[in-house]
Amino acid sequence: VTGRERLLIIGGDAGGMSAAAQARRRAPADRLEIVAFEKGDYTSYGACGLPYYVAGEMDDPEELVSRTPDEHRSQGIDVRMRHEVIAVDLDARVLRVRDSDAGADRSEPFDQLVFANGAEPIRPRLPGVDAQGVHGIQTIGDGIALREHVVKEHVGDRAVVVGGGYIGLEMAEAMHERGMLVTVIDAGPQPMSTLDEDMGALVAAAIRKIGLELQTETRVQAFETDEDGHVRAVVTEHGTIPADIVVLGTGVRPNVRLARDAGVKIGPSGGVKTDPRMATSVPGVWAAGDCVETFHRISRRPVAIALGTYANKQGRVVGENATGGYATFGGVIGTAITKVCAYEIGRTGLNEEEARDAGFEFVTATIESTTRAHYFDGSPEITVKIVAEKRSGRLLGAQIVGREGAAKRIDVMAAAIWNEMTADEFVQLDLGYAPPFSPVWDPTLIAARKAAAMR
Amino acid sequence: VTGRERLLIIGGDAGGMSAAAQARRRAPADRLEIVAFEKGDYTSYGACGLPYYVAGEMDDPEELVSRTPDEHRSQGIDVRMRHEVIAVDLDARVLRVRDSDAGADRSEPFDQLVFANGAEPIRPRLPGVDAQGVHGIQTIGDGIALREHVVKEHVGDRAVVVGGGYIGLEMAEAMHERGMLVTVIDAGPQPMSTLDEDMGALVAAAIRKIGLELQTETRVQAFETDEDGHVRAVVTEHGTIPADIVVLGTGVRPNVRLARDAGVKIGPSGGVKTDPRMATSVPGVWAAGDCVETFHRISRRPVAIALGTYANKQGRVVGENATGGYATFGGVIGTAITKVCAYEIGRTGLNEEEARDAGFEFVTATIESTTRAHYFDGSPEITVKIVAEKRSGRLLGAQIVGREGAAKRIDVMAAAIWNEMTADEFVQLDLGYAPPFSPVWDPTLIAARKAAAMR
Repeated sequence: VTGRERLLIIGGDAGGMSAAAQARRRAPADRLEIVAFEKGDYTSYGACGLPYYVAGEMDDPEELVSRTPDEHRSQGIDVRMRHEVIAVDLDARVLRVRDSDAGADRSEPFDQLVFANGAEPIRPRLPGVDAQGVHGIQTIGDGIALREHVVKEHVGDRAVVVGGGYIGLEMAEAMHERGMLVTVIDAGPQPMSTLDEDMGALVAAAIRKIGLELQTETRVQAFETDEDGHVRAVVTEHGTIPADIVVLGTGVRPNVRLARDAGVKIGPSGGVKTDPRMATSVPGVWAAGDCVETFHRISRRPVAIALGTYANKQGRVVGENATGGYATFGGVIGTAITKVCAYEIGRTGLNEEEARDAGFEFVTATIESTTRAHYFDGSPEITVKIVAEKRSGRLLGAQIVGREGAAKRIDVMAAAIWNEMTADEFVQLDLGYAPPFSPVWDPTLIAARKAAAMR
Repeated sequence: VTGRERLLIIGGDAGGMSAAAQARRRAPADRLEIVAFEKGDYTSYGACGLPYYVAGEMDDPEELVSRTPDEHRSQGIDVRMRHEVIAVDLDARVLRVRDSDAGADRSEPFDQLVFANGAEPIRPRLPGVDAQGVHGIQTIGDGIALREHVVKEHVGDRAVVVGGGYIGLEMAEAMHERGMLVTVIDAGPQPMSTLDEDMGALVAAAIRKIGLELQTETRVQAFETDEDGHVRAVVTEHGTIPADIVVLGTGVRPNVRLARDAGVKIGPSGGVKTDPRMATSVPGVWAAGDCVETFHRISRRPVAIALGTYANKQGRVVGENATGGYATFGGVIGTAITKVCAYEIGRTGLNEEEARDAGFEFVTATIESTTRAHYFDGSPEITVKIVAEKRSGRLLGAQIVGREGAAKRIDVMAAAIWNEMTADEFVQLDLGYAPPFSPVWDPTLIAARKAAAMR
């Protein structure tokens, strides 16, 4: 009736709402209608903040929300909460949407469409996995349930975290700080499998020092439940671990069922295939966030990595392109950081296994240093590992484990890797030095110097 | 007699001893004799650590020494302490050296020579500047004298720091922490003149909040002394300030008298002119550290900047080249960071005035953010300012003022500026994100996004 174009968005989190916001900035409401469908209760929330909500950094889960539905609406974006898109017809260009409150379905026509329906947790198909007390850690609902349990139960209760990745360890710390006895189980030889084994061993030592129990090379076989259907133990190949609560930190995969069923091309990594403008295989259909496959600049391979920073950037690119602008997403290099109590962990680029897989020959250099001048009391230690291409010396990846001031040093390595600098070139960089922040040779420079000498 | 080559080094601090160490690594002692002459009492000390010695971070000034004369000797480097080189004859290739202990002069022939005699403090030629209680802040001797005074005198004594640059402010903090009443006087409109005035104003507000007295746009005219010849007040154009102790943070200039008298070319910035291999205008004669002129990669102009990180790198380059190797120093972009109580300051590249001087047209973008997710209690604030070239959007400079986690963020900006990235390209960077370290959009990315939109 209005003659306005219609841009529909599936998913109201980082990717979708960044797309909506950027499109709104560029196109007036009388020219473009923007509607986002979110099946849950929140928009634009940071799942990465859930461990801090469980730990009690803040008491209101709404604080994890960077923009509420009403805030989006006041910007001229129509947000439909508890609306699940159940089918996509790309020929008719119409969505089938279920309104959970009204219990009714409706058809919604569109001119352009954005898939931003995120990732789904990988739940191991094991006996008892659906028992009460076995929690995921993806939605605010997960966080609320987990925190309620943690707060209600007595201190000293036993928690088991399955999967020693970023969010698994962060959640383990949160529960540990709440006074629970926490065991982390990981199938690999070390936790934090995006690090090499030698660097993962430092993480293992750190979290054991903190007081967390850690069982590596241990696969979960089942979850035992009590007569009420509540989990009471985790059965592993090496024995049974009592558990009052279980947290599944077993990763996520792109949520692509809708897109695949609609005929949108899915890439080899399992995410929606996108070009640099975040266009899918179907004209006028875009994708952003955890559901997409993007490009790894160093391995030159398609990858699907669920990360809020990527979702935000990709969403902006979609919003620009869907309104006649031009923007591209430059791909990723897999930078990630985390903090477990006093310990900080960072990684970027390719680790040894990834470099090998990608066909590189390489050298590695690992150094120990501190993040302040040595004469400061308790100057925090830091270990930096660099993976550099043989002969060229080009930086391929870096890993950091240390204490205060360690993790964010990954950024300068990420900028260097992004720019394809060699270790030799990196050593020349004019980095900030002052005794409270660094030895005269920054630890990253010392590592690069060593790598440069090895190639 | 031995047939060995002789490499002599004037100055036993960072530049000279890095050259010596690298040369020693590459050339065996039976082929190359290395002798360093140091007129003072210490080798390889970090002058940048002096404020922390005065503040009491450590009690032994030797802790500022990264390698003692004996440690150098054990590596096969002949270090002659309290030996001052008083003349250089480049035709005869011989040094005239004064042994302060023996009170005798000696001639020392050389094959290759390294000027590494550092910088000299700029002492304003004002009445009373040589009074007792007026201290420099360059040598460990300065630091010891200053600390003795600070510790001996009563708390509540008045200190005046002339010059609100890095080391002036660091020393002001140190004395403030020791319980003194500290006034900082600066001739400019704001302290920290390597920042733009708007960013300097943030520093001014911060140091006033800490409890330091600050007088800007104030020129010192004289130092009043008591009958014992001890300073008792600082006379300025705006009045007289009582002072029990005065610290001169009025900067340094390259120490080039010896080199100039010997016929070595001095550059327009006032430092010894060097090529990328750190060779001077005379074959077989090298230079490293605070006495040299080097190249600013963004302004493309010769500059003389006294900084330990440059001295270390340049020294290594000299040690490589003096032993038949090949290495170059890549120039500088003027990165610097500091900490004053809880406040952190960083800068890199060109500020507005420097960019204008260098002939650039530019835009600036300034943003306020935090260094952790907003929901952390007291998430530290940070202000980031970017100077970017008009039209191209190329990053020319960045400045940061903030609290915990702020200053070292300058490194990623430095790496980007070094690589001539545009603001648009910077926004794509894959930087580390986790709630304890950053909002989802790192403050540096937010600033670059704003700059990209302005150009």
